[in-house]
Amino acid sequence: MPHIAYAAASESFTRLYRYQHLAALAGWDQATMMPGKGNAARSAAMAELEVLMHHTLTAPDLHVALNAADNEALSEAERASLREMRRVWQNANLLPARLVEAQSLAGSRCEHAWRTQRKGNDWQGFLQNFREVVALAREEAQLLADASGKSRYDALMDKYEPGMNSQEVERIFGDLKSWLPGLIRQVMDKQENEKAIVAQGSFPVEAQRALGMQIMGVLGFDFDAGRLDVSVHPFCGGVAEDVRITTRYREDDFVQSMMGIVHETGHARYEQALPRELVHLPVGQARSMGIHESQSLAFEMQLGRSPAFLQLISPLVRQHLGDQSAFTAANLARLYSRVRPGYIRVDADELTYPCHVILRFEIERALIEGDIEPEDIPALWDEKMMAYLGVDTRGNYRDGCLQDIHWTDGSFGYFPSYTLGAMYAAQYFASIRQQYPDLDARIAAGDLSPVFDWLDANIWSQASRWETGELVQRATGEALNPAHFRAHLMARYL
Amino acid sequence: MPHIAYAAASESFTRLYRYQHLAALAGWDQATMMPGKGNAARSAAMAELEVLMHHTLTAPDLHVALNAADNEALSEAERASLREMRRVWQNANLLPARLVEAQSLAGSRCEHAWRTQRKGNDWQGFLQNFREVVALAREEAQLLADASGKSRYDALMDKYEPGMNSQEVERIFGDLKSWLPGLIRQVMDKQENEKAIVAQGSFPVEAQRALGMQIMGVLGFDFDAGRLDVSVHPFCGGVAEDVRITTRYREDDFVQSMMGIVHETGHARYEQALPRELVHLPVGQARSMGIHESQSLAFEMQLGRSPAFLQLISPLVRQHLGDQSAFTAANLARLYSRVRPGYIRVDADELTYPCHVILRFEIERALIEGDIEPEDIPALWDEKMMAYLGVDTRGNYRDGCLQDIHWTDGSFGYFPSYTLGAMYAAQYFASIRQQYPDLDARIAAGDLSPVFDWLDANIWSQASRWETGELVQRATGEALNPAHFRAHLMARYL
Repeated sequence: MPHIAYAAASESFTRLYRYQHLAALAGWDQATMMPGKGNAARSAAMAELEVLMHHTLTAPDLHVALNAADNEALSEAERASLREMRRVWQNANLLPARLVEAQSLAGSRCEHAWRTQRKGNDWQGFLQNFREVVALAREEAQLLADASGKSRYDALMDKYEPGMNSQEVERIFGDLKSWLPGLIRQVMDKQENEKAIVAQGSFPVEAQRALGMQIMGVLGFDFDAGRLDVSVHPFCGGVAEDVRITTRYREDDFVQSMMGIVHETGHARYEQALPRELVHLPVGQARSMGIHESQSLAFEMQLGRSPAFLQLISPLVRQHLGDQSAFTAANLARLYSRVRPGYIRVDADELTYPCHVILRFEIERALIEGDIEPEDIPALWDEKMMAYLGVDTRGNYRDGCLQDIHWTDGSFGYFPSYTLGAMYAAQYFASIRQQYPDLDARIAAGDLSPVFDWLDANIWSQASRWETGELVQRATGEALNPAHFRAHLMARYL
Repeated sequence: MPHIAYAAASESFTRLYRYQHLAALAGWDQATMMPGKGNAARSAAMAELEVLMHHTLTAPDLHVALNAADNEALSEAERASLREMRRVWQNANLLPARLVEAQSLAGSRCEHAWRTQRKGNDWQGFLQNFREVVALAREEAQLLADASGKSRYDALMDKYEPGMNSQEVERIFGDLKSWLPGLIRQVMDKQENEKAIVAQGSFPVEAQRALGMQIMGVLGFDFDAGRLDVSVHPFCGGVAEDVRITTRYREDDFVQSMMGIVHETGHARYEQALPRELVHLPVGQARSMGIHESQSLAFEMQLGRSPAFLQLISPLVRQHLGDQSAFTAANLARLYSRVRPGYIRVDADELTYPCHVILRFEIERALIEGDIEPEDIPALWDEKMMAYLGVDTRGNYRDGCLQDIHWTDGSFGYFPSYTLGAMYAAQYFASIRQQYPDLDARIAAGDLSPVFDWLDANIWSQASRWETGELVQRATGEALNPAHFRAHLMARYL
């Protein structure tokens, strides 16, 4: 007997995938290409598309099909597909169309204004749009929480990292807070005596771009199925068949931009390697945001900042940016492992990065749970930046609470994914090293296949076939174990 | 009494406008940014969007609303708006969704493959996709013809130039054919003795782009509401709030690219100046393709190639491309009025251009009416190119029948708009000259306001308020009168 209901549900999700294609393109273009006066029309079009996607997911026919499919004799793979369709369905069906449209409009407006407001250090201006974004996010959180029995914040986090909850995150982050600040101080003391040579001179955007593209090539990025462009906040967008990554360039510094490209290429390869025959269905798409970040961080932190990889690309750096003593493999490794507390999360080193995430997690959880209001953010930000990193951010909103795009469009609950991703990535590499004891030598010699093959077999090709916990268990033989992250940091930095 | 039905119909068309925004963006990106492997997913998404737009236009509620609105006490402006909504509605409601989707898919496939096939001179490969495009266009033409009583080709042409018919076009083109080949020969003889200096050297793309952008500025293009990019076939796309024009560069020649930018800027200013408060409804959108082409040709042929304008921009050319005797105003005027029959329509001079259009009109009409088949095109092309322009195109499909994008996606009936547009443009400028006897002196001095003000008042701000015939009558005091075109050519070239 054919699986009529399963096929009907799949057809709805295929249509949804095509709408998501348009939404991804519209968002990418808005951030990379669109001139300012196009924004009102763009926002209206994107909000209309959100409503349409919401209608697609809330159509009574789809509900009927999903329920009927439950009683069909599905294969194990089809059952996994149905599970993932149902997850998407549930998140959408708890939200009224009015709320979805309002969130899209408010998010677009806030994000667009933020691009100017951030430059102008204009927290008060930002607050005017941001209050509505928060109010709508709380409304969403309440609706999701009422249905799931989770707390409001957990209900939002579940959209990005299903299966995780804030108690578990708090436990993991609490453990981190117990040893990470000490480790940061210890490493900073050690690095006092290791002088890294800072590269001199101006690095033309075109040269940096050419270097970035060549490194993307080394990392296996498929340029027939993707692009590299520029945006204020680097991201990986587009669709699996056409992945659009972005970076930003500073002519006085190539360090961040180059590694940013490595990071986004990690996201991109995950997308480019998702199983083509299933990518139009949720089961064929990325597992979660934490797993997505684990790919970018496997590329950036585990691979990209390793001495072996820097040895591999040191000649490329010299080729594009000129020959300097700063560009030796050893010095690049010092530059890319230098620990220095700073304002900006995306520019943070591997060791201080989790502090930026913990701070945001604590603030956004309190904000969504209603324990604080938007206007309380700067004071809390200042206090926590001082406590965790010893950095003074008072009055500096631009490099403080206005620095990230996430809150501007209401993506609360996303931040923990970064540090969970860093931990997953450390765990993967522990497995890869076990399987390939000569890993570093192979990387330095330009053979990255151990990394790509392992990730492809264990993560990329698996898409959303398994729940996150099972995916990690199958890949590494154990559940998420933060000890690998700590061991990695100790090995690299002490 | 509020106009409930009129408001409901307007709401549907507003939603349609937002979908069109996404379609325009997806099409622009496909031609300018998209890597090759993205095409299948893009085509599927665009086809899905076509179906959605078609559903929007064929929803029973909209039919009811349009009919009920007829009985509401509408203002004159609302009645014009209703007329234009009904025109769009009718074209869509005669076509089944299956056909619309099939046309979108076949058009995308054919156009995408054409980009490679044209380079490879691969007519046989093209034919494989093209046959389906023609079959579907004939099916569409038949459905539209059955409903309107027009011929099949006229039914298609009506989509681009409502109110025009092929008998009238044949009459106008027949007249053209009677004197244009003779004039071309006469002018070529005259130009034998006028040596135009060809600019020497390589013109870097970046310098050409900077020059193009500066000329766009002189022409009043709003860069906060649009962009300039590169595509194989130059076009003006995007949406009124964010107009995306493209060009293509050759490093050994700046002449075509520069004037191509002037041409597309004419399209762009029309879009950028459409009445913002109405642009989401058909009545606030461009009147027709012929009127659209009349804007680009008013900019390119009437203004851009005039000695006065070339005097104005000659210093800019020298500034960006270096100082050469070829860049004097007088020599630029000779270069831009040089008559020389050639292969390529978009590179054709003002005098031979109509021959390219007449040839295409005659072939595509026969093709749609079923008098010839796709495989007959090359022989007819060769024969007519020889007859009208004395040019031998045998075996050269790349520069022959494979040169244009229009047929690849089934836009049959569009070509006559170019020459109708050239005639409208000549008629506008006859009016402008009457109103501003010192027009050339003002242009040369950098005051283009007579042109912009006249076009804004008479064409841009009027959008689709009037039928094409009435628009032209109101603007110039008479109906389309090809005598202005002939007079303009005689004045410029003899």
